[in-house]
Amino acid sequence: MHKNIIVMKFGGTSVSSIEKIKKVAERAVKLKNEGSNVVITVSAMGDTTDDLIDLASGISQNPSRREMDMLLSTGEQVSSSLLAIAINERNSKAVSLTGWQAGIFTDDTFSDAKILTIKNDRIFDEFKKDNIVIVAGFQGITNNMDIATLGRGGSDTTAVAIAAALNAKHCEIFTDVDGVFTTDPNMIADAKKIDVLSYDEMLELASSGAKVLHLRAVEFAKAHGVKIHVRSSFNNNEGTWVMNTEKINEKMEQAMVVGVSYDTNQVKFSVFGIPDKPGIAAQLFSGLAKAHINIDLIVQNVGENGIAAISFTIKKEDLKTGEKVVKALQQDLGIKNIEIDTEIAKLSIVGAGMKSHPGVAAEMFSSLGSKQINIEMISTSPIIISCVIRKERISEAVKLLHEVFGLNK
Amino acid sequence: MHKNIIVMKFGGTSVSSIEKIKKVAERAVKLKNEGSNVVITVSAMGDTTDDLIDLASGISQNPSRREMDMLLSTGEQVSSSLLAIAINERNSKAVSLTGWQAGIFTDDTFSDAKILTIKNDRIFDEFKKDNIVIVAGFQGITNNMDIATLGRGGSDTTAVAIAAALNAKHCEIFTDVDGVFTTDPNMIADAKKIDVLSYDEMLELASSGAKVLHLRAVEFAKAHGVKIHVRSSFNNNEGTWVMNTEKINEKMEQAMVVGVSYDTNQVKFSVFGIPDKPGIAAQLFSGLAKAHINIDLIVQNVGENGIAAISFTIKKEDLKTGEKVVKALQQDLGIKNIEIDTEIAKLSIVGAGMKSHPGVAAEMFSSLGSKQINIEMISTSPIIISCVIRKERISEAVKLLHEVFGLNK
Repeated sequence: MHKNIIVMKFGGTSVSSIEKIKKVAERAVKLKNEGSNVVITVSAMGDTTDDLIDLASGISQNPSRREMDMLLSTGEQVSSSLLAIAINERNSKAVSLTGWQAGIFTDDTFSDAKILTIKNDRIFDEFKKDNIVIVAGFQGITNNMDIATLGRGGSDTTAVAIAAALNAKHCEIFTDVDGVFTTDPNMIADAKKIDVLSYDEMLELASSGAKVLHLRAVEFAKAHGVKIHVRSSFNNNEGTWVMNTEKINEKMEQAMVVGVSYDTNQVKFSVFGIPDKPGIAAQLFSGLAKAHINIDLIVQNVGENGIAAISFTIKKEDLKTGEKVVKALQQDLGIKNIEIDTEIAKLSIVGAGMKSHPGVAAEMFSSLGSKQINIEMISTSPIIISCVIRKERISEAVKLLHEVFGLNK
Repeated sequence: MHKNIIVMKFGGTSVSSIEKIKKVAERAVKLKNEGSNVVITVSAMGDTTDDLIDLASGISQNPSRREMDMLLSTGEQVSSSLLAIAINERNSKAVSLTGWQAGIFTDDTFSDAKILTIKNDRIFDEFKKDNIVIVAGFQGITNNMDIATLGRGGSDTTAVAIAAALNAKHCEIFTDVDGVFTTDPNMIADAKKIDVLSYDEMLELASSGAKVLHLRAVEFAKAHGVKIHVRSSFNNNEGTWVMNTEKINEKMEQAMVVGVSYDTNQVKFSVFGIPDKPGIAAQLFSGLAKAHINIDLIVQNVGENGIAAISFTIKKEDLKTGEKVVKALQQDLGIKNIEIDTEIAKLSIVGAGMKSHPGVAAEMFSSLGSKQINIEMISTSPIIISCVIRKERISEAVKLLHEVFGLNK
């Protein structure tokens, strides 16, 4: 009698119209009729979230985050109820639940809340009533009964967190591509779909520019051992499985590099002429942290006379705030001058196999060097090597590394 | 230290744009700064509710009422959060609450739910934090934690119910006219604003066609003694007070008739040739009641040979369902034939003063007769007299009665 539970997640483009919502309903009903209990997490329809943000910006340049969450959470509530209606129309039972109705409790970091716990009774009650359960993505409720959202892309996290809370067989993330690719298929025509990735590989790909899966969702999946299947909402092809790959890898030869990713949405700050004293970098970076700015790559050089230079990259949307923060600290920290470079790109290669192949970094750098592509910053970890290059060279560099590491075969 | 509590309610046209929302914010902040605790209930922006209904009808002709409530309740959540942002922008504290956050519990008659109770702790907590409290209108939550809406116009009811639950000084209902008029000012140029009405007079005016206030809200106000002030959102003029008028009326001469109202949104059903047996009318009307159709006027005539005819009026939007119900009963009840007349209008005069003036009905009928306006059905109660006439004569008839009873002076 015990049925498999499968969680499906559909993004905003998959529910952007009535017709697409009907397609999602069709797919969900099919899965249920094959004998599973089904939970569906949906994002807001198409541009809804942006439209709501526009409304708010017409009133205030700095709206309360609590009120923004109240506002934005309606988008997923709309798509959820419409999907329930579409499933009913296919003679299948369904119920839509907001985040709070689904028992998703978060902390109170409005607009970027973390899921604390999921009380799964309501969802199990609805399974007993033979319902497909639709859960509005991207949102939960604080202990003070305020609506909080998980930040952009948070519907992935909702889906994975629910899969963990229900001990689901796996979590299917539907998207507009066939899975995770060895590099961006829009840029490199012979990019190949990856069949299986470890959580760490997926994490590095997600953090280094691949937009197919939300970073936090992968972290959550890793922490709770949730198997994720990233696949297309337009066909029934197998996509990419993100899972614990240790057992698989014991048996098969492991690919050294699984993917090449890039990010052209970063800017580089360089601050020159700061005294090489302990605590200066800490003050700089804690100032940025207070302004909720995440720093990606950091390079610090000590020059002559104990005068240091620090370069770091942040997201393009944080440019203005970042500039304000650094300028405010300039006098205190003794910074001589500040340079901002918007013409950079980050280029990364990812693969758990690199751990046992120490020559990979060297191969990457020499390949780039052979084409006169200058490397401006470098960051390495056991399974990812990233470097900053000129933005105008990124497409060429991605294609080069994709070939050098045999990902086009 | 104890402050007055005032509840303000703004309808969809008062919050239909960013600019109008800012105006509402301005008014609310002014009232708060004058020293009151303020609660604001808002409807959805402009056509939002209709737009959401259109989306759902693109999917199903008969969507689940539970899911429709889930869908439609988002409209008020959007306008509430935007209003909170607009109030913050005027340097005043505000918090928006959904129906469930505001503690509004309803029964589970989805799309037409009744408020059962309001747990007012959260609102009082927010007063302590110096917040203007915005409550999404038209919605509440069932004991099963499902969102339920109060039906169209339900935001009036929300406002009055909250005023009752908080023991507010009064409830201000903002609208696009200056108050309640002696008749429809769009039809009759010399219609006059009424200063004070009793609950019963307002009830009869609302039920007989005046659309300024939702019927159930007035019933709620009467039951809980909530003073309502119906006024314009475009100016600061005094509007119409709806309240317990007994004390006022002891002191002043009471107007016989306070208003002339009409309703052109009704259709008349006539069923002919039914046997004059007990229970036939009951079967007919209970069949309609089961289909959630409200019957307004009823006239039953017993003709020769014990064969009866029954005429009744219902809302135009219930025409098709009503027709189905009556036809399904036709054979069982022995109905010979059914006539449906869509060219009727209901005309009413209202006034608590009529109780002590028995000649009012006669004056109404003779005035209409003098102009050859035929009366087809009549219904009377101590404070309202209604009759059905041809729709094409309604404007002429309203003008006539408005003059006959001196309301234009």
